[in-house]
Amino acid sequence: MIVSTHRYVLLIEYDGAGYHGWQRQKNARTIQSCLEDALLSLCGQDITVHGSGRTDTGVHAEGQVAHFDLEHRWEPRRLAHAMNAHLRPERIAVLCVTSASQTFHARYAAIERTYRYRLVVRPAPLALEVNRAWRIAGPMHVDRIRAAGRHLLGRHDFTTFRSVHCQSRSPIRTLDSIDVNAWEDGRGLHINLVFTARSFLHRQVRSLVGSLVKVGQGSWSPERIADALKACDRSQCGPVAPAAGLTLMRVCYPDDPFKSVAASIRGAGHDS
Amino acid sequence: MIVSTHRYVLLIEYDGAGYHGWQRQKNARTIQSCLEDALLSLCGQDITVHGSGRTDTGVHAEGQVAHFDLEHRWEPRRLAHAMNAHLRPERIAVLCVTSASQTFHARYAAIERTYRYRLVVRPAPLALEVNRAWRIAGPMHVDRIRAAGRHLLGRHDFTTFRSVHCQSRSPIRTLDSIDVNAWEDGRGLHINLVFTARSFLHRQVRSLVGSLVKVGQGSWSPERIADALKACDRSQCGPVAPAAGLTLMRVCYPDDPFKSVAASIRGAGHDS
Repeated sequence: MIVSTHRYVLLIEYDGAGYHGWQRQKNARTIQSCLEDALLSLCGQDITVHGSGRTDTGVHAEGQVAHFDLEHRWEPRRLAHAMNAHLRPERIAVLCVTSASQTFHARYAAIERTYRYRLVVRPAPLALEVNRAWRIAGPMHVDRIRAAGRHLLGRHDFTTFRSVHCQSRSPIRTLDSIDVNAWEDGRGLHINLVFTARSFLHRQVRSLVGSLVKVGQGSWSPERIADALKACDRSQCGPVAPAAGLTLMRVCYPDDPFKSVAASIRGAGHDS
Repeated sequence: MIVSTHRYVLLIEYDGAGYHGWQRQKNARTIQSCLEDALLSLCGQDITVHGSGRTDTGVHAEGQVAHFDLEHRWEPRRLAHAMNAHLRPERIAVLCVTSASQTFHARYAAIERTYRYRLVVRPAPLALEVNRAWRIAGPMHVDRIRAAGRHLLGRHDFTTFRSVHCQSRSPIRTLDSIDVNAWEDGRGLHINLVFTARSFLHRQVRSLVGSLVKVGQGSWSPERIADALKACDRSQCGPVAPAAGLTLMRVCYPDDPFKSVAASIRGAGHDS
């Protein structure tokens, strides 16, 4: 018997602080298992949710993308509403559901991923951004971070900046951009580092951030980043930045699956 | 015996979610009591911490100001560091300490207070801004909120928009500005309402926001805000907006107590 299925794509937000990362594991709460549990209670079937990529324990998402197949056809807004009802009280929200053709794949069709890393530079501990940013003591020289970041752009062997547990066959990646946005607000110096690439290696962003912070603090020269990269030697990496500061912001596809339904994220009738 | 004392001023950040507001109470964790407990364990004395004003249960602060007197002289940066050590693991951070003359008073010397109220307009529940914003379903017309806000500016009797438990002798206040900042980020429509006045009545901002949201949703006309204000009748107020969206951003004084020590908030040696 051939069962025809319907493919749905999710846009998901989550607070990674309470989860052992994206990927389903035995005896651990993960984002993927919470979504699959919600679908099981909704449809009575074991459904596999395929993410655009894994996020580690403690890493957040403002725009994770995932897909799955259902036997029954659902009105996408109703499906989003029902999933959110079954996810309660998890810190996971389905922002949007759309239907897609069987050729769409959240992981393999993705052409660009954007991560943001948040730093707060000040002597005081964090009260509001706990679990959302890395608080470090100054001094911090933003121009040195920018100078070091330029050495990382383009296609390189990123062996130095990936976990020894990284399962990718190739350590070659192309880093398209690193934007360094810095501002002060009376509570400290805030620095957002925004990384864009087709794909990233395991722990790549946190490894890069830990080394860039060494440069910003003045204990590494910007050129040491270039040397560490060329060495292709994991021992040349600085400390790995904590997971709490990292957020998966956006995953891009040749044909944006949420383009036609952007209004459903926010309801109808806006103006500003 | 005359004991000369030294006055210190605090700039404080807190996540209000776990506290029964600012003011000390029996059998309840409050911001004031946590600060006083930290000073007791630090100095071995009961010290009263005077805030610029109370914040309600669940209300946050990015820039609350408070003062207190100590018999011993402290180096301000050391005092900040010691207080933060004694406050751990509370969600309260002392951003800055400065010394001040006995004429400074956190409450009575304040000439301007700024509050921000955060709205997120979308069908999905919040996963990242839980306890930090009010999530409401659309539609939401920002231009209507702006039009309604103009009726509230200036000096008025705000009886309609204060709690029946408000202890201020006069219901007259002067609202200097309401800034309505709105943007979309693919997760929803974000609206920050920023209110500035010399002082506010109890529940005034949340009462105003609840009524302005009625206008934004289209169920009240902008003019109904003017009529409600003129009525001086609490029953004409809309629903009171939840505490979670509200943050005390800034308290201003004729002579900024933190002016000379801004660098100590963020450490030395920044550039951007």
